[in-house]
Amino acid sequence: MRIALFQCASQPLDVRGNLDRLRTQAHEAELDGVQLLVCPEMFLTGYNIGTDAVTQLAEAVDGPSAMEVVEIAQKCKLAIVYGYPERSEDGQIYNAVQLIDAQGKSRCNYRKTHLFGRLDHSMFVPGPGHFPVVELNGWQVGMLICYDLEFPENARRLALAGAELIVVPTANMVPYDFIAQVTVRARAYENQCYVAYANYCSNEDFIHYCGQSSIVAPDGSVHALAELDEERIATTLDRQLMVDTRADNYYLQNRRPELYGDLSKV
Amino acid sequence: MRIALFQCASQPLDVRGNLDRLRTQAHEAELDGVQLLVCPEMFLTGYNIGTDAVTQLAEAVDGPSAMEVVEIAQKCKLAIVYGYPERSEDGQIYNAVQLIDAQGKSRCNYRKTHLFGRLDHSMFVPGPGHFPVVELNGWQVGMLICYDLEFPENARRLALAGAELIVVPTANMVPYDFIAQVTVRARAYENQCYVAYANYCSNEDFIHYCGQSSIVAPDGSVHALAELDEERIATTLDRQLMVDTRADNYYLQNRRPELYGDLSKV
Repeated sequence: MRIALFQCASQPLDVRGNLDRLRTQAHEAELDGVQLLVCPEMFLTGYNIGTDAVTQLAEAVDGPSAMEVVEIAQKCKLAIVYGYPERSEDGQIYNAVQLIDAQGKSRCNYRKTHLFGRLDHSMFVPGPGHFPVVELNGWQVGMLICYDLEFPENARRLALAGAELIVVPTANMVPYDFIAQVTVRARAYENQCYVAYANYCSNEDFIHYCGQSSIVAPDGSVHALAELDEERIATTLDRQLMVDTRADNYYLQNRRPELYGDLSKV
Repeated sequence: MRIALFQCASQPLDVRGNLDRLRTQAHEAELDGVQLLVCPEMFLTGYNIGTDAVTQLAEAVDGPSAMEVVEIAQKCKLAIVYGYPERSEDGQIYNAVQLIDAQGKSRCNYRKTHLFGRLDHSMFVPGPGHFPVVELNGWQVGMLICYDLEFPENARRLALAGAELIVVPTANMVPYDFIAQVTVRARAYENQCYVAYANYCSNEDFIHYCGQSSIVAPDGSVHALAELDEERIATTLDRQLMVDTRADNYYLQNRRPELYGDLSKV
């Protein structure tokens, strides 16, 4: 599966403009043979937009913007992961990401479980313990959002559920470059799966995003890394590499879950 | 607390020689103001020595070699962590590390829980779920051995038990440099504690150790990193840095243990 990350500047409050940008990117990605295009966290509306704007712009999982993403995915014959503020049926607002496949079908919707600081908490309620893993083009795919990845428990949970690719839309900022440079690689290596980390670059109000979007292989090697001014990076997932990595080491089998009870003690 | 790592070549089967080396190192470390000196995994006997030799050289936690380490620690007025093959009261052999304090008191004995491949399994039985955290010179100290650290669950468990410093005697070999370069830093950062990773350099039979012993701070910064020919590295732990790091981010508080039940499912 060929996968691309769209590392853009946030375009806050401009849903129309962001859908147009997505359409352009999807078209270019199609020409590059991309089968899965990943946008950053809260791509649809921008991330740092405040409580009022989030409340106003939040949409249902199958709202009008989702329908337009469906149409773009079908037209460009590729799957799309994008972040957006989701209004649930009971009126809660989540920081969510959705995976629409090339046939335009919603395959997976994930709500950020680990909210980051005042910013997230002022806008969202934390997601429930629903960490779906779905098949896409022969790969088992799970999703996390930004801060979620910084807790090893979350990527581990997905790996135990069979994830071979963890897609992570993010809005990671200076001075947290460490995550992009080190943590992303550690998660891929320790779970022997791909991690695709799609970040913003440039500024959004007082936030300076740190870019460094990357696609890291199950052996920890960086297969694609975005320069600051690079809008799209892509790589083709290598199943043999994953198989070889998992034959060289057996992290998932060598765990001793009977020793890990403390990790889930409330 | 000033801490030093002794990155040496393995000296297999030479218990007498290794105790002599430790004495020399401890004396030099004392002159450098070191309060805790950490040796690699299975330092007392060498690591890759085979089942017969391990069976022959294994000692009780308070065996004659331990008594000599006690004497060295008292004489040089510093604490020592060293790896050795431990024969338990019921005759099992563990890959163990022991912490002897500057008063010569055994403060902590840990038995490797996650055995690495055929090598470990041919020599040892896996340790039980006993992960002690003890106070030393005002710091809460936990211990892991080599492969243990590669599982995020183990360092997390120690951090949840209050560890501020995780001491990791290791025998990490090429081609697993990734652990020394990336995983060690990720563990320190995600648990907001110090990690001290004491490895061998040079060869031992078919094993080529990868060196790169390091002491990493709670913010992920590398405070000491051994060159290949560097026998001893040292740094002084900085409590204010740890406090500042923990005030900037709240990984341990922001966990959601109610979501992590899958991690301990057997």
